[in-house]
Amino acid sequence: MTNPALGVCYYPEHWPEAMWEADAARMAELGIRVVRIGEFAWSRLEPTPSDVRLDWMIRAMDVLGRHDLQVIVGTPTATPPRWMVDKHPDMLAVDAQGHRKGFGSRRHYDFSHLGYRAEAARITQILADALGDHPALGGWQTDNEYGCHGTTYSYSPAARDGFRLWLRNRYGTIGALNAAWGTVFWSMEYNSFEQIDLPNLLVCDAAPAHELDFRRYSSEQVSAFNKVQYDILKARRPDLPVIHNFMSRYSEFDHYRLGESIDIASWDSYPIGHLAKSDETPEHKAQYLRQGDPDNAAFHHDLYRTVGHGRWWIMEQQPGPVNWADANPDPLPGMARLWAWEAFAHGAEVVSYFRWRQAPFGQEQMHAGLLRPDSEPAPGYAEAGQVAQELTQIGFAGAPARARIALVYDYESEWAWEIQPQAAGFGHGNHVRALYAAFRKHGLDVDVLPPTTADLSGYQIVAIPALMAWTDELREAVANFDGHLLIGPRTGSKTAHFAIPPQLGPDLGAGLLDARITRIDSLPEGIEVAVKGGGATRLWRERIEGGPEVVMEDVEGVPVLVSQGKLFYLTASGDKALVQRVVDYLIAEADTPTLTLPAGVRCRVRGDFRIYVNYASSEQRLTLAPDEAGYVLGGASIAAAGVTVARLSRAD
Amino acid sequence: MTNPALGVCYYPEHWPEAMWEADAARMAELGIRVVRIGEFAWSRLEPTPSDVRLDWMIRAMDVLGRHDLQVIVGTPTATPPRWMVDKHPDMLAVDAQGHRKGFGSRRHYDFSHLGYRAEAARITQILADALGDHPALGGWQTDNEYGCHGTTYSYSPAARDGFRLWLRNRYGTIGALNAAWGTVFWSMEYNSFEQIDLPNLLVCDAAPAHELDFRRYSSEQVSAFNKVQYDILKARRPDLPVIHNFMSRYSEFDHYRLGESIDIASWDSYPIGHLAKSDETPEHKAQYLRQGDPDNAAFHHDLYRTVGHGRWWIMEQQPGPVNWADANPDPLPGMARLWAWEAFAHGAEVVSYFRWRQAPFGQEQMHAGLLRPDSEPAPGYAEAGQVAQELTQIGFAGAPARARIALVYDYESEWAWEIQPQAAGFGHGNHVRALYAAFRKHGLDVDVLPPTTADLSGYQIVAIPALMAWTDELREAVANFDGHLLIGPRTGSKTAHFAIPPQLGPDLGAGLLDARITRIDSLPEGIEVAVKGGGATRLWRERIEGGPEVVMEDVEGVPVLVSQGKLFYLTASGDKALVQRVVDYLIAEADTPTLTLPAGVRCRVRGDFRIYVNYASSEQRLTLAPDEAGYVLGGASIAAAGVTVARLSRAD
Amino acid sequence: MTNPALGVCYYPEHWPEAMWEADAARMAELGIRVVRIGEFAWSRLEPTPSDVRLDWMIRAMDVLGRHDLQVIVGTPTATPPRWMVDKHPDMLAVDAQGHRKGFGSRRHYDFSHLGYRAEAARITQILADALGDHPALGGWQTDNEYGCHGTTYSYSPAARDGFRLWLRNRYGTIGALNAAWGTVFWSMEYNSFEQIDLPNLLVCDAAPAHELDFRRYSSEQVSAFNKVQYDILKARRPDLPVIHNFMSRYSEFDHYRLGESIDIASWDSYPIGHLAKSDETPEHKAQYLRQGDPDNAAFHHDLYRTVGHGRWWIMEQQPGPVNWADANPDPLPGMARLWAWEAFAHGAEVVSYFRWRQAPFGQEQMHAGLLRPDSEPAPGYAEAGQVAQELTQIGFAGAPARARIALVYDYESEWAWEIQPQAAGFGHGNHVRALYAAFRKHGLDVDVLPPTTADLSGYQIVAIPALMAWTDELREAVANFDGHLLIGPRTGSKTAHFAIPPQLGPDLGAGLLDARITRIDSLPEGIEVAVKGGGATRLWRERIEGGPEVVMEDVEGVPVLVSQGKLFYLTASGDKALVQRVVDYLIAEADTPTLTLPAGVRCRVRGDFRIYVNYASSEQRLTLAPDEAGYVLGGASIAAAGVTVARLSRAD
Repeated sequence: MTNPALGVCYYPEHWPEAMWEADAARMAELGIRVVRIGEFAWSRLEPTPSDVRLDWMIRAMDVLGRHDLQVIVGTPTATPPRWMVDKHPDMLAVDAQGHRKGFGSRRHYDFSHLGYRAEAARITQILADALGDHPALGGWQTDNEYGCHGTTYSYSPAARDGFRLWLRNRYGTIGALNAAWGTVFWSMEYNSFEQIDLPNLLVCDAAPAHELDFRRYSSEQVSAFNKVQYDILKARRPDLPVIHNFMSRYSEFDHYRLGESIDIASWDSYPIGHLAKSDETPEHKAQYLRQGDPDNAAFHHDLYRTVGHGRWWIMEQQPGPVNWADANPDPLPGMARLWAWEAFAHGAEVVSYFRWRQAPFGQEQMHAGLLRPDSEPAPGYAEAGQVAQELTQIGFAGAPARARIALVYDYESEWAWEIQPQAAGFGHGNHVRALYAAFRKHGLDVDVLPPTTADLSGYQIVAIPALMAWTDELREAVANFDGHLLIGPRTGSKTAHFAIPPQLGPDLGAGLLDARITRIDSLPEGIEVAVKGGGATRLWRERIEGGPEVVMEDVEGVPVLVSQGKLFYLTASGDKALVQRVVDYLIAEADTPTLTLPAGVRCRVRGDFRIYVNYASSEQRLTLAPDEAGYVLGGASIAAAGVTVARLSRAD
Repeated sequence: MTNPALGVCYYPEHWPEAMWEADAARMAELGIRVVRIGEFAWSRLEPTPSDVRLDWMIRAMDVLGRHDLQVIVGTPTATPPRWMVDKHPDMLAVDAQGHRKGFGSRRHYDFSHLGYRAEAARITQILADALGDHPALGGWQTDNEYGCHGTTYSYSPAARDGFRLWLRNRYGTIGALNAAWGTVFWSMEYNSFEQIDLPNLLVCDAAPAHELDFRRYSSEQVSAFNKVQYDILKARRPDLPVIHNFMSRYSEFDHYRLGESIDIASWDSYPIGHLAKSDETPEHKAQYLRQGDPDNAAFHHDLYRTVGHGRWWIMEQQPGPVNWADANPDPLPGMARLWAWEAFAHGAEVVSYFRWRQAPFGQEQMHAGLLRPDSEPAPGYAEAGQVAQELTQIGFAGAPARARIALVYDYESEWAWEIQPQAAGFGHGNHVRALYAAFRKHGLDVDVLPPTTADLSGYQIVAIPALMAWTDELREAVANFDGHLLIGPRTGSKTAHFAIPPQLGPDLGAGLLDARITRIDSLPEGIEVAVKGGGATRLWRERIEGGPEVVMEDVEGVPVLVSQGKLFYLTASGDKALVQRVVDYLIAEADTPTLTLPAGVRCRVRGDFRIYVNYASSEQRLTLAPDEAGYVLGGASIAAAGVTVARLSRAD
Repeated sequence: MTNPALGVCYYPEHWPEAMWEADAARMAELGIRVVRIGEFAWSRLEPTPSDVRLDWMIRAMDVLGRHDLQVIVGTPTATPPRWMVDKHPDMLAVDAQGHRKGFGSRRHYDFSHLGYRAEAARITQILADALGDHPALGGWQTDNEYGCHGTTYSYSPAARDGFRLWLRNRYGTIGALNAAWGTVFWSMEYNSFEQIDLPNLLVCDAAPAHELDFRRYSSEQVSAFNKVQYDILKARRPDLPVIHNFMSRYSEFDHYRLGESIDIASWDSYPIGHLAKSDETPEHKAQYLRQGDPDNAAFHHDLYRTVGHGRWWIMEQQPGPVNWADANPDPLPGMARLWAWEAFAHGAEVVSYFRWRQAPFGQEQMHAGLLRPDSEPAPGYAEAGQVAQELTQIGFAGAPARARIALVYDYESEWAWEIQPQAAGFGHGNHVRALYAAFRKHGLDVDVLPPTTADLSGYQIVAIPALMAWTDELREAVANFDGHLLIGPRTGSKTAHFAIPPQLGPDLGAGLLDARITRIDSLPEGIEVAVKGGGATRLWRERIEGGPEVVMEDVEGVPVLVSQGKLFYLTASGDKALVQRVVDYLIAEADTPTLTLPAGVRCRVRGDFRIYVNYASSEQRLTLAPDEAGYVLGGASIAAAGVTVARLSRAD
């Protein structure tokens, strides 16, 4: 399934069986090749305990298969039925305020609850057994959007017991834990693992290492929960891919770790709601109200390509207005096509729209589908059909280009700065995404790397901003890297136990960066310090001590960018202008070739194609690049929400 | 008691008995004719269980009666005494966070608790028996401000059990409920009514139909609670009215339904605090800081006239600064008079000030009365006396005029859009009140109608904005209506089970409006789309498909107002300018005669009188209208907070 | 220890014992003379129940003593170890939402829990016994920052039981309580003390007297908790001072009352974080981002001088960036010196920096010390050393001058207006601090007095703003005072039982102020009424009735400042300009000599010295005052964050 294909999410259980055939026929006619089903259907698969009814699902797969549609079957574990709660009353998660969350929506389970984990294994095995040989079966999805609605963390007795066990395994002795957490600080020393509680409902902050370990523990429960299903599904059909659908800017568990037990990463792309719920400025939100942030989807494409070891899908693609943001604007005409093209450009194998037909009932009745509730085509319908046609028309294929630029993105660093921002608003992901956007403005492809990356060779520029702690692998990779490396601010400022390293940050070996960060000046929103030459620092300013050469300094004479050979250290959080200046400087130093893109236009190379997309709300004009042989879709004039594809003249 | 009269709220239990006689004499002298007592006195009526002491209350009624004051006796059920909580510990309501709310303020009971309901019946019966024949008795008030402080909804075991029973009665089978709620959506299907829980403390949203039914259930408990008292009181004295005092912009239960078991509706009018706590703009709040919103009291007058089947009172009228808003400004001199006159203009039988004397102790010690705590007159005292004198002087009487304009206001629609706003800030009442103000700016009287209205004849213009679902009666009334009808946005967009109608909204019969709403573009605050000719849409924009003629469209060419014959559909929420344009257009189409009113001036016709009130903070100048014979109170020049009454030349 | 000295907070338990000697030597070399230790060390002093290990602490004291450092030993009761919670599970406090707060941070105990109070006594006795004769011992600190993190109020069964007992002792009969609280108001009457609950989780507000009594009760538990330790420590070493370290703008308990069982008051001064967390305007916060509010530290110096009966310290002085505000800016270079000098100017005996070395682990790892985590000097190190040198160099000594101006600050008034602001934002402390700043702008020294002050003689001007209720002592003092007295707004507006006085406020005896406040006009933020001549009223405007002469009135003709002889009554809350005008007027009337200070500069007299400090971020120029003989430190030019000390020519 490496040829780009369209998919759709379908809920046969929501519609009379009499409608299925026509639905399937229209899907196929539209150019859809993949259909995801089943992920919320447990109450229909097992209406009462042990009364398993898969007949209807098999019939639905039969219908879809008859129209050459490949079926991805989702395990329904995100929505255990009501009777399950009677069976396992303590499977319901407990929130940080101590409230047990009830039945009546979805994701009402505790990742630490082993009884429910066994139930999830049971239903997965049932599906694997019954559907594993169905000819329409194309793969599996495990659960749905792990962690959605803040469900990664549960403060239940099950979580507490699991956490204690996990700590015992991690530290061996309580003394080792006390040392690692620094519990001597406020007489927080424990005499045994049984004394440790979860870090909620305290008088003030828990020890940061306590918080961080609870996040690590919780993250591992998500991975463990997934692995149970993965192992069952792979045992049944080693040849079929197991997929999970992740989300945007969601970092409560470590996706790289979970990625170890999936074959393909996918994510659910709702660009407009994601922008609405983000911390972007009101001006930015207004500018891209009907398009979504022009770099956010792309960043996640690149992230999940890494999480999926190169293989990734869009499992749910926004086809029109959604229902879950405070306001849910209609996308600009063309966006449902643009988003799909951009995903394919970044290497997606499948882009699957959510959902086939708008449901007239339930929580998401205001969420558009490709069809309206009255089965008439919604605007996204024709756009999806156009994409299907265009893919074929230009013979779109190929692997996403290996980028010259790489950024390290790290889940533990997200947790670390949430636990201890020191300046409200300071976060790891913010820094990564700001750099991502600045590189991409030059038409540069970017790879996203995990913090366990052991080899950076092949990249011209690598940036590792705001990393909590070095892994051994990354420390090694950095030492051996011969490209241009940008680190800071705050990179390497902690040990793995959330303490300040003995020699202070950035804690690199001697000879790499002979300097240390001696003091932090953290600033409230709205206070900025201008940098000589342009741009400003904000939120975070470090004082650095040592030998590196000063490349940029602020108007107070404080070094902002320093260098030692090809290693650059940024001592501050910057505004957009400063981040762009730093990136421009690195690009110039590294002599990396760039493109000149009109405002709002972004691009990516896949195979022999360079795909341009226009997030601006007005037409823009492209210039044919030296490595382009001509346009094979669209042209130099690219409308608002438009797509232009150039064929590259170079061999791929 | 149909001749307009003044009243006052009095708490004999707060003052030494020696003061009662002088108080009563001063009341009578001031022109007061009605006194409400008793509604918070349970701990004095029954200090310990079954130790009933009504002697003091009878003596208080004797004193008041001696001064020809009619007494309204409030049942004290809003403030059960402390010992009651020992008797029924689970009578305390539980909030949405799961906290049982304790004793120590008021309204600490759960409407679903049948044990407390029986206690309420018991004390009501005791009062009815003991006081029913008292010569001073003029009527009863049930409880006090049902639902105040968010007490309509309780998430207690009693509420859960009651809800299950109610659902069983409503749906008969669990299958019917599953179908109605669309529980298949996320495997939320129930196997029995015993599995259903209240829709709080969930992981994410409950099914909207689940939420809506819980609101319906809770609303019905309030009605049922009231009916128990009503039946007892009417059985004892069928000739005396039973009254309840409602509130401003309070919609947690259906007041029309509760109105079925009262004889007279009343409400508690605190215009300044109501404006302070409303969602009006800061500019508007500053402009009317010392007057209150110029249309809000009037709207509620018209609403409660309908709730009371034509009979209504002000039970509590603000006489000066209150204590419960964030800031509590002194009213403009004259407002305590203006508010009373405006209420009478809209048909009030009684306007009763709250309260006689400011209490020096307790929660409301900063709430002004007609008297200061030291028994000296507060500014409202003289204003009340002036009103009493003026009513007599001009022989004010008559019924409120039947309006040419009507608006449908619906409690279920309030709930529906709170449950599913789709655009944060979208609400039913907002739309109704915006239209109300726009009509009233032309001096037009307006009636407020329930969603069960079966006949619209007699009205020139009827507007039904943002109605969730058509009732059978209203559907019929609309079909038969021969005036101008305005509906939308979002009117008829749901079924009674909170689902999208099969043929989509506005879901009217063929031939009425051959169109359907196919898509919603919902927008954040601050984003507006200009309409050609003036005004702008905001928050909500619909795409409409079908045949109607376009009357107004926005600058993007999207239809905003469409018409089919005399039926107009508004596809968007508008800013004030747009709402006014639409109303002006309808008035012109319907050829409805209007008045020209200075800014801040409002008017209403009752009997042969047109009463003008000036909410502006500066003097305004009136023009004698063609149907007016002259002024009988005040004149063409109307001061800030002033009142002018014209006598109509036409026969009433 | 009356010669000004520097101190530091040190945690030997955080560092290898091998480091102690070098640390002590550096401290002594830097000029430090006092070292606080021990206040968070319980888990090291008693690792398991009854396993007491004081050897290490004695060795630490030995080391410090060898370097002539005096040791203040803190009782470790703010951080009971984990095993204590197993012993007394209900010692954990319960917050207003009903959640029991867990172990894992600090201050996890309930002041009402008598079992824990006994444990605190036990460990205190152990320390007293073991360390009482240590030659290095210079005094004791009880607990740490009572009330920090909102821990004064607990809503636990222990607190409820204690409150009931306390009420029984206070009122004797339940009838007396009912009368005092005005429980008749909403049928809240109690039949017995056992029926009384804590005023949390109610439907709406509790009776204000109920709230106030709960605050009084809770405040007394803090005092009682402290007194247990005080008595033990004084019994062991009557000659050594017992100290507690209070906080900034913290008013949950009555510090004057607690001050009865300490010998020296101290407080923890973090000017930058305090400003960040205050309700000052964004402009003010930006102006003093790196300095802190220029009057806040000084106010607390003067307050705690009174709390400590003339003896006070800074126990924790910010030496650099801290970790607990939303943003934590680096202080201007020089501020660590300026803050110390200002404290000494106001009479501090010791200024002790927090902390010696930045901890690399635990919750406060981002909190700077005098040393960095790598033991290198942080910027505060040299500044501290400079202060030590300068103190010696100029022979700084002497008592703080008795001020001509006094302000009454009252904890109960803080509680009263938090319970019943009537205008959101109205508070007691706001009024006191605004007057403080206005007086201080003229270079005037100010004393802060408790509400129990019985004699005001010696002061030229006394101000008592926003006082809830007169004490008998203060009533007497006011009657006998022959200086200029300013009271109002709201002063004397309540009885001690939180009721309006029978003759209304300000409730002074006849002949003092023959007037009464008859009405309150409370206003939202942003609405101001200009005062003729300059300035404006805001939030709070009173109508006053009676004979006093009008000194200032607003543009509506409402009296703002009235006088009767030398007693002035201010009827409103004023903006800064109005407060300054009123103060200027009083100063002129009282003929009080003033200084002219540049913007941002403040001063105070101690002994023969006048100390100038410059909070501005730019250099300022001083003028030698007539009573000054010349400068002994710095000069007329005072840099940003600079200090200049003048010697007075007059005899002290």
